[in-house]
Amino acid sequence: MKDRAIRAIADCRHIATLTEEPGRTTRRFLTPPVHAVHAHLRSRMEALQMTTQTDAAGNLRGLWQPAGCGEKRLLIGSHIDTVPDAGAFDGVLGVVLALELVALAQANKIPLDVEVIAFSEEEGVRFGVPFLGSRAVAGRFDPALLALKDADGSTLEEAIREFGLDPDGLATASAHEDSVGFFEIHIEQGPVLDTEGLKVAAVTGIVGQTRIGLEFRGHANHAGTTPMNLRRDALAAAAEWISAVETASLKMEGLVATVGKLSVRPNAANVIPGTAELSLDVRHASDAARRNAVDNLRERAGAIAERRGLQLEWNRKSDEPAVPMDERLTAFLVDAMETCGFPARRMSSGAGHDAMVMAGRMPTAMLFLRSPEGISHHPSEAVRAEDVEAALLVGLRFLERLAADVR
Amino acid sequence: MKDRAIRAIADCRHIATLTEEPGRTTRRFLTPPVHAVHAHLRSRMEALQMTTQTDAAGNLRGLWQPAGCGEKRLLIGSHIDTVPDAGAFDGVLGVVLALELVALAQANKIPLDVEVIAFSEEEGVRFGVPFLGSRAVAGRFDPALLALKDADGSTLEEAIREFGLDPDGLATASAHEDSVGFFEIHIEQGPVLDTEGLKVAAVTGIVGQTRIGLEFRGHANHAGTTPMNLRRDALAAAAEWISAVETASLKMEGLVATVGKLSVRPNAANVIPGTAELSLDVRHASDAARRNAVDNLRERAGAIAERRGLQLEWNRKSDEPAVPMDERLTAFLVDAMETCGFPARRMSSGAGHDAMVMAGRMPTAMLFLRSPEGISHHPSEAVRAEDVEAALLVGLRFLERLAADVR
Repeated sequence: MKDRAIRAIADCRHIATLTEEPGRTTRRFLTPPVHAVHAHLRSRMEALQMTTQTDAAGNLRGLWQPAGCGEKRLLIGSHIDTVPDAGAFDGVLGVVLALELVALAQANKIPLDVEVIAFSEEEGVRFGVPFLGSRAVAGRFDPALLALKDADGSTLEEAIREFGLDPDGLATASAHEDSVGFFEIHIEQGPVLDTEGLKVAAVTGIVGQTRIGLEFRGHANHAGTTPMNLRRDALAAAAEWISAVETASLKMEGLVATVGKLSVRPNAANVIPGTAELSLDVRHASDAARRNAVDNLRERAGAIAERRGLQLEWNRKSDEPAVPMDERLTAFLVDAMETCGFPARRMSSGAGHDAMVMAGRMPTAMLFLRSPEGISHHPSEAVRAEDVEAALLVGLRFLERLAADVR
Repeated sequence: MKDRAIRAIADCRHIATLTEEPGRTTRRFLTPPVHAVHAHLRSRMEALQMTTQTDAAGNLRGLWQPAGCGEKRLLIGSHIDTVPDAGAFDGVLGVVLALELVALAQANKIPLDVEVIAFSEEEGVRFGVPFLGSRAVAGRFDPALLALKDADGSTLEEAIREFGLDPDGLATASAHEDSVGFFEIHIEQGPVLDTEGLKVAAVTGIVGQTRIGLEFRGHANHAGTTPMNLRRDALAAAAEWISAVETASLKMEGLVATVGKLSVRPNAANVIPGTAELSLDVRHASDAARRNAVDNLRERAGAIAERRGLQLEWNRKSDEPAVPMDERLTAFLVDAMETCGFPARRMSSGAGHDAMVMAGRMPTAMLFLRSPEGISHHPSEAVRAEDVEAALLVGLRFLERLAADVR
């Protein structure tokens, strides 16, 4: 199994060289290097006697149907697009390991159809909307999306045609009716498993997320001539609130709240800031806990503004509920972890994944691998061979368990 | 005299329309609208039979030499650059009133050479270092400053050439050897005179000022997958420190400390800020008290960075000691106020002014006008015609008194 793990890592490193930008890994949806990735993966699929096709959303799909089986089909996959200047493993590892699981299913004569999917789009970089590939497979691709434009002014429809595909076929990209589930392996992209010294975890769900845009409005004035007690300093108010956000989040188990953007006006060294505009991103596995936290932070911002004689503007930009993974499939996955001798670590995912979209269509399970130092979306993103080996061992047991169940 | 006051106000309002940003008054050092301001002021100077030149630091200078005089020269002026989204009177009013004083000196046959200077730079907005114009006239322009870069990456040297000037001529910008003094009229930019119902005050000195540029460097990471306790959030550190700055300043009599600039990177809603870059401006009438406060704030920033596992960069950008005005010239000014029937109000200035730099070169006096509601560095900055009239009356008496003294 160790050889498979080492080969999978080498495969990811090779695929990382198929890029839009020499020297950096940047591979957006349906850009030219995607043809090279498809060619590479297709040859791997054909070597495994899989039948291959590229659907109208640009997802490369390979089907393994062992003799005597048919009808019951497990989907396994992840995405092959990347953020700009990406690492080698976010998404791609899940596709490469899906192929290794097919090889293991063949070697172990597991009686289950397996469809491997290399989703064309997950990151949302090229058209500003994520999950284009999995939306199509989940049968939830809104044709209105075809009018989206990329930075060069090309529409999504044009990009699909340019790649040699027919957007009219999008409806037929939807998953086979007898699919019994979707399974995704992905790097954690966070520091939790690394901190705990664990190789893998079963994902229980994708956290819900609220995004807020807010602004404190005070009064810009001269930094030298306005006594401290007569100021209406928007940045001082923002600072007090940012500290409150951090304190509240540290106190509440599982809550992450981030102020990632901040701009002050007029933004001059000798002028008291008149306005401070901020972003707030709040995530929690429990929708009720998340909404309660957002309400408390809003109340706190209002109290700070009122005490300081400032105005507060608060705009909810998005509010996405949490998506739980399928309990039955996740139980199989945890069983598989324990059978292999790994702790039954369950965790929620703080980031969105194709599994989130697929869960709206069919029972879905997801396995996280440790991200060394929690690094992701960065060239130094890595995985350890021992963790990849663990994921393959768990994946194989999961396939056996599922095959026994659906027979 | 009332007509002159009304004309001066209208002139300031006109100059405020010469801006980098349509609809807002923003006029940084040697940006294109400065050419238009020079053209306007030069025509006013020429109408007063003054000889004009623009020195290598971009200061517009007009010289009035009445027949039979010569040698003894009074400099009068203020600056024409502005903060972003400024009012119409900070600086510009002092230049416009200098020209009115030349007209009054001519009408009253005051036997004194008068050089009017429209300083090119006082606010420190474009290159982060203030008083570039008056440094040159005071003969204290350090050529090392030419390497300073603005936000677009242009050096100060390039900016001077771009404006059509020759930085090699900076040494010749220094004031004439027989200058007997510098006189500046400026709005108070604070609430003191307005609160006391007074039109003008003689400035006894300018508080010392320290400017710091600092940066907290943590680690940018995913806002969804990085638990609160594993973050190295540069903005959270900055927020904690900004609150500490405010608290310390509220506790110490006469201290003002301001964080006016803040920028975070990467500045995306779903990414934990990796760096936060801030400005700090600290002022106090006592140099020892100010330096002690700056030391304490630096120590506090270091402690916050250390506890959070961040790096701190701390750069002292400027450190200007408190500067007393010349006692003899200030006595003339107070005499002039009393002669005109105004109370002999003396006050220190919480803001830096060109007078502060000029005082290092020659005897200097300064007159404050009331700022309605203390508003400055804001589009609603204003002056009252009756206060402008008072300043002109006092200025005329001051010129007469000085001319009699230096004869």
